[in-house]
Amino acid sequence: MSHLLHRPHHDGSPLYTSAESAPLGRAITVRVRTSTHDPVDAVWLRTVRDGEPFFDPCTRGATDGADIWWTASVPVHNPTQRYRFMIVTGETFRWLNASGVVDHDVPDAQDFTVSAYGGPPAWGRDAVVYQVFPDRFARSAAADVRPIPEWAVPAQWDDAPIHQGPHTPLQFYGGDLDGITEHLDHLVDLGVDTLYLTPVFPGESNHRYNASTFDEVDELLGGDEAYRRLVDATHDRGLKILGDLTSNHTGDTHEWFLKARSDKRSQERKFYFFSADGSYETWKGHHTLPKLDHASGALGDRFRRVVARWLEFGLDGWRIDVANMTGRLGAVDRALDVAREIREAAVAVDPEALVLAEHGHDATGDLAGDGWHGTMNYYGFSFPVWEWLRDPRRPTPSFGLPVDLPRRGGAAMVAAMQAFTASFGWRATQASWNILGSHDSPRIRTITGSAALHHLAAVLQFTLPGVPMIFAGDELGLEGVNGEDSRRTMPWGDEIAFKTRTRDVYRALAALRREHVALTRGSLRWAHVAEDEVAFLREHESGTLLVQVRRTPGEFTELPGIVLEEHLFGLGETGPTPRAAVWSVRPNA
Amino acid sequence: MSHLLHRPHHDGSPLYTSAESAPLGRAITVRVRTSTHDPVDAVWLRTVRDGEPFFDPCTRGATDGADIWWTASVPVHNPTQRYRFMIVTGETFRWLNASGVVDHDVPDAQDFTVSAYGGPPAWGRDAVVYQVFPDRFARSAAADVRPIPEWAVPAQWDDAPIHQGPHTPLQFYGGDLDGITEHLDHLVDLGVDTLYLTPVFPGESNHRYNASTFDEVDELLGGDEAYRRLVDATHDRGLKILGDLTSNHTGDTHEWFLKARSDKRSQERKFYFFSADGSYETWKGHHTLPKLDHASGALGDRFRRVVARWLEFGLDGWRIDVANMTGRLGAVDRALDVAREIREAAVAVDPEALVLAEHGHDATGDLAGDGWHGTMNYYGFSFPVWEWLRDPRRPTPSFGLPVDLPRRGGAAMVAAMQAFTASFGWRATQASWNILGSHDSPRIRTITGSAALHHLAAVLQFTLPGVPMIFAGDELGLEGVNGEDSRRTMPWGDEIAFKTRTRDVYRALAALRREHVALTRGSLRWAHVAEDEVAFLREHESGTLLVQVRRTPGEFTELPGIVLEEHLFGLGETGPTPRAAVWSVRPNA
Repeated sequence: MSHLLHRPHHDGSPLYTSAESAPLGRAITVRVRTSTHDPVDAVWLRTVRDGEPFFDPCTRGATDGADIWWTASVPVHNPTQRYRFMIVTGETFRWLNASGVVDHDVPDAQDFTVSAYGGPPAWGRDAVVYQVFPDRFARSAAADVRPIPEWAVPAQWDDAPIHQGPHTPLQFYGGDLDGITEHLDHLVDLGVDTLYLTPVFPGESNHRYNASTFDEVDELLGGDEAYRRLVDATHDRGLKILGDLTSNHTGDTHEWFLKARSDKRSQERKFYFFSADGSYETWKGHHTLPKLDHASGALGDRFRRVVARWLEFGLDGWRIDVANMTGRLGAVDRALDVAREIREAAVAVDPEALVLAEHGHDATGDLAGDGWHGTMNYYGFSFPVWEWLRDPRRPTPSFGLPVDLPRRGGAAMVAAMQAFTASFGWRATQASWNILGSHDSPRIRTITGSAALHHLAAVLQFTLPGVPMIFAGDELGLEGVNGEDSRRTMPWGDEIAFKTRTRDVYRALAALRREHVALTRGSLRWAHVAEDEVAFLREHESGTLLVQVRRTPGEFTELPGIVLEEHLFGLGETGPTPRAAVWSVRPNA
Repeated sequence: MSHLLHRPHHDGSPLYTSAESAPLGRAITVRVRTSTHDPVDAVWLRTVRDGEPFFDPCTRGATDGADIWWTASVPVHNPTQRYRFMIVTGETFRWLNASGVVDHDVPDAQDFTVSAYGGPPAWGRDAVVYQVFPDRFARSAAADVRPIPEWAVPAQWDDAPIHQGPHTPLQFYGGDLDGITEHLDHLVDLGVDTLYLTPVFPGESNHRYNASTFDEVDELLGGDEAYRRLVDATHDRGLKILGDLTSNHTGDTHEWFLKARSDKRSQERKFYFFSADGSYETWKGHHTLPKLDHASGALGDRFRRVVARWLEFGLDGWRIDVANMTGRLGAVDRALDVAREIREAAVAVDPEALVLAEHGHDATGDLAGDGWHGTMNYYGFSFPVWEWLRDPRRPTPSFGLPVDLPRRGGAAMVAAMQAFTASFGWRATQASWNILGSHDSPRIRTITGSAALHHLAAVLQFTLPGVPMIFAGDELGLEGVNGEDSRRTMPWGDEIAFKTRTRDVYRALAALRREHVALTRGSLRWAHVAEDEVAFLREHESGTLLVQVRRTPGEFTELPGIVLEEHLFGLGETGPTPRAAVWSVRPNA
């Protein structure tokens, strides 16, 4: 067995943790696995309760092959209960926390956590999500007879997106909701079970993030009736559907803002940050996007009504836009309060509702138990994967950085993933979205520069902890150098475009994930981490999977002690290309 | 020049940061130093504002020897403003944050910070603190005629402390405040400028952490009058004096608790956590120490009055006992609110007041700008030093851990220090206490097992960022296997005991610290980190110092590129022993 697998291990998966949450005052059983190859004399559980560390001994179990299992009980004393393990060998000890094994003392930020709060709905953790940007997905016949709005710059379906300049948000392709309804078979065929739609409220732009109301669906998309048909159709096929709501700002054509601007005494005036001279706070200086002031209780009521109303209509949850900035401005920070309010309003309608945050960077503090269920995990998944699998032959477009994407080795990728997983906690990481690209980023095909590397990225997306979110068109290998360019139309008229190896790969990976609980609920142990190759185990009582990924041609590194059983999936395993393999392996080998 | 010094560097010291705080909306100039030996093409400043990352380019300055200085401006947009640097070389970049240079992405927890809040008073940052446990320091003549209280187990001055069992808190030596006043010359001679006294309020124990009132000084110590004499005498000699207040609990003989227990309708009833059956929350299960409920506004008022009253009496600040648990219980966490309230009450009386927290472990969240000025830095200083310099010949007693102290190498010591410094921030680390031992821990002489290693520990205590706190008697090499055993009396009758090399070492180090601003305000750059040896620079415009410390015999590692100027301090530099040296060195060498 390789060196990494000899290290003491614990994570939030069922093999190691009896439950992710329990009411205050109850306890959760936790287990640590150590190996006879890395001798351990004692293991202590350290919990921090009310700010004070406490130590309890772990009970050593029988030796099982090379494995020794240690057991202890974590009292859920604080709502987010931190713990770590002291691994004693001879006269010294190491700490085992959520970032791994460390040989020196560290603050508590990366301790393991269990929670007194309930978690995300099971479906939201096991989902395969498909993101649709409505203007670009598909046009129904009705789209042909709809008048084009005055603000729009009309485009033909095959036109390339205008990806910079003032026309970018105005270029109008006319995709609509019935268009999506007509193509749900494509999602089902792919193995998707959750449809996430960027906003459908009216706004004078193709992205509709500058809504003029939250009370009705844009007539350009077919209005409430078309939404009704889409929601029902998704449910008929067993799919879930998520909306997209901006909590940080509205458009300056929003009915609340119009009222606020015209009537200084209106309730709505307090929904925004107006100065005495009539100027107002905005999102990043865009005067068309006035920022909301969540100190207003009346705004909170309105917002909760919107959240509830569309869940009652049939949505299964919300993706919340710019959640990272919501409620934050200078000395004011109500971000977590807003997250709690939105989640409360959502689960009041539907206990199984999902609330997922767009969070541009470090969401640590906002996933603390009763806030967002998870985040769009750009920093803990997308960036590490992009950096490892970016096109090695040329500068590669980045996202949110002032420089091109660097190329890094496997150790850096894994270290970044571990750092964010440790900060978010196991449960929130599981519920967060593994994203290879979105309407805000370059396309994965453009980043990787090849189908072969794109496919490896998809393997990581479907096999590492987290929920795969596919941006519509990625499965066809569409390209895009930035978010706006990535908003390309689906080439429904081009049958060849749909007969791609890439689509087969996604289909196979979605099926694999559906068939193997280890991929959704299993533990994660890194088995091999090198510059060009990584391998990891996903372990579950129902079976253990080994995933191997090499970004350069060559043989996989042999992993002594792991007994391969069934070959479940493979890419490029015989040619001089990048390669990947998924195997079922013998547990506790 | 050695490898470590080629790395890009920034910290909160004046060479790198124009100010540690500025009002919201203002900006602070920051500088990064890079070296031509580790080429850098560009440096970007990354700030996180309202939860969103922003990038601004740094301006490259002229090359100065091998150094290149980059400048940027950090807008203080949020009260605790986080920032880090992106160090670009060719097609890749590294991050520079408060933990150092990292080659992969990490969450924001270890970003640099500047603050919109004012900081600790200058005297509190530059201090050399001397801790006195009144019962054990010195008896005045008056002590001989005072009646011994009923609860007490009388001891002779030369008796060894009873360090376990029920008599431990009752053993009574009768040290008093006039005894301290009579020996202030000893403090001045040592180079101490701040006296910190553990509690002086009456309580039926020798430690007095179970106060029966906060309104008067224990008559066994000489009462308010003796306190008056001591406070005046310290001020006459230019010393500051700190009190010790327990905010987490009181004694069960405290007047508030007696009222609360006897009268269910009293205001005081709400100061504690009573259950319907009359039981109440305590500190770690000790029924004599009922926990305070800081949700009570009336308690807050009383507490602020106590804080203010003794500052008006003449104290210069407070050390707050069990600050880590204060205000925390299960789902309730008012810890930071209480810290703010106490600090507010203190600075309202004296803008230069210091509030310093006892914080048993990770104080990160409680030092966030307007809470505690600093902490007793056991985790970020004491433990790393103890582990590096513990007695290598035998098991070494620990503190707060279920195992003996491990022995670790220099890299682990430095990594732990960096991790805690990064979490606390530069300013709070500077204001926190570098502790080699206290009334709660084994004595440093016992931990190190030799004068030679003890002296090295003192070198680190006085030359690393942070405020040295000397537990009375450490300068004589007193021993103690645990906190209770460490509460040994000062052997005033034994002249020989005061003529120790150890005392000379402390005297010399305090003088060195007083003479060289670099040791209080300078930057910290690690120059060499190995198993048995560490070296670091403290840089300031007034001059740069090099500190070298070796725990085993042998020559210091040569540091190419550093030009030694004046030898300022040395230990064991010629013999086969541990050794240390402090040099002034040529700046920018």
